[in-house]
Amino acid sequence: MSEASLDHPDPQSVVKRIRRDIRSGRISSHTAGLAPGFLQGNLVILPRRYADDFHSYCLHNPKSCPLIGISTPGDPSLPGLGADIDLRTDLPRYRVWRNGVLAEEPTDITALWRDDLVAFVIGCSFTFDTVLRSAGLKLRHLEMGRNVAMYRTSVPTVPVGPFRGPLVVSMRPMTAPDIIRAIEITSTRQDVHGSPVHFGSPETLGIGDLQNPDYGDPVPVEAGEYPVFWACGVTPQAALAEAKPELCITHAPGCMLITDRIHHN
Amino acid sequence: MSEASLDHPDPQSVVKRIRRDIRSGRISSHTAGLAPGFLQGNLVILPRRYADDFHSYCLHNPKSCPLIGISTPGDPSLPGLGADIDLRTDLPRYRVWRNGVLAEEPTDITALWRDDLVAFVIGCSFTFDTVLRSAGLKLRHLEMGRNVAMYRTSVPTVPVGPFRGPLVVSMRPMTAPDIIRAIEITSTRQDVHGSPVHFGSPETLGIGDLQNPDYGDPVPVEAGEYPVFWACGVTPQAALAEAKPELCITHAPGCMLITDRIHHN
Repeated sequence: MSEASLDHPDPQSVVKRIRRDIRSGRISSHTAGLAPGFLQGNLVILPRRYADDFHSYCLHNPKSCPLIGISTPGDPSLPGLGADIDLRTDLPRYRVWRNGVLAEEPTDITALWRDDLVAFVIGCSFTFDTVLRSAGLKLRHLEMGRNVAMYRTSVPTVPVGPFRGPLVVSMRPMTAPDIIRAIEITSTRQDVHGSPVHFGSPETLGIGDLQNPDYGDPVPVEAGEYPVFWACGVTPQAALAEAKPELCITHAPGCMLITDRIHHN
Repeated sequence: MSEASLDHPDPQSVVKRIRRDIRSGRISSHTAGLAPGFLQGNLVILPRRYADDFHSYCLHNPKSCPLIGISTPGDPSLPGLGADIDLRTDLPRYRVWRNGVLAEEPTDITALWRDDLVAFVIGCSFTFDTVLRSAGLKLRHLEMGRNVAMYRTSVPTVPVGPFRGPLVVSMRPMTAPDIIRAIEITSTRQDVHGSPVHFGSPETLGIGDLQNPDYGDPVPVEAGEYPVFWACGVTPQAALAEAKPELCITHAPGCMLITDRIHHN
């Protein structure tokens, strides 16, 4: 039994069926709540000439860009994350960016595929929130039916080539005992942003008004709670907006790659 | 190679020599800073008729009483923690308690040993502080040359038989990033109290005045810092004071059992 097979027990029929439904177009909306227990990923596809710099950017900023898979140039499969994955068809919806400008939102990118494209899969906070919730922690944004609150900080990421920009963080309000528990849980989950980068004073991160997030929805912080900040998967999107590659294909917001990998928690 | 031998590589000559110097009476003061890198333990010796309750008390209160060794009744050796350990001679100084009252502080308890005595060894915060410091965290009480500040809380421990009493906590002031790092480090160190039980508001634990600790020395909390509270090895002492066994032998404060076990950090 290979090391990979330990993480990939018999391909679970539910994941295979969901990916088949996405591939056929039967599912074209967000993947939140689909295939609970299986790791989901953000997708970034770039021409090969950007790939080394973007790879290095992710490795230098591991808390915001936790790489969980990279394809061979021109190869739309990703056997490390799922035996039957075809990255051209297996996400519900994509975003195609040309020179940093959103051009279209197709449900299939087969017609756009090129031999020089390289795909990067980055751990997703859907998984992250599932891990925290299954440990019994309450997450207010989910209880309120809101998106998580996200903020561009004054903390710069480590720049590599054209990729640079601010660290973007997500915020979850928690009490001290819940923060301790959340750090215990997330500290070993480097694949989904790891432990928080900060809690308490937002001004330390250059965040002016917690109730005016730069992305997502405002989430109130109640008495006895601290705002807890985690590095966020929107960080690489900010770097891509800065780099303006002539072509870049990403997942559409919330429309993630569902992998065969079980997340242990 | 047994599992135990993985934790006990060739008995390190430094530890053997220190224990020999303690046994011969050449060392009769505290063990702080001796044999850095080796786990030190608190000692509690009780007549067998208290042993089951005390054992259960430790297991029910694992953060304050992390058991790392228990002897066979009447046997003063503890091969699981060191091949040559003799618990009657290998601590620099002991305290003998009769009906909860301190009776004497000998450097050798051979004359007091009985066939019905059971020894418990509990992870010690000397090790704990070493783990935090070697990760680069600053500990103000050590920088100030003070003992850590400790407090009796309003949080009761889980009572078992005659053993009951308040959770006692130690306090270390830290910034938010240091708290995150400290939780990451200590969450896997259940043998030395694990992660904190609380940080921030002392009143949540029933602590009135941080600058008036119940044990140890006051340590200032500076602007931008939070008081961080860990379960403390003084907790079982409070429970022993409550139970008042007719005989109890403990280490004298700071005079710990030095084990062969390397602490990984």
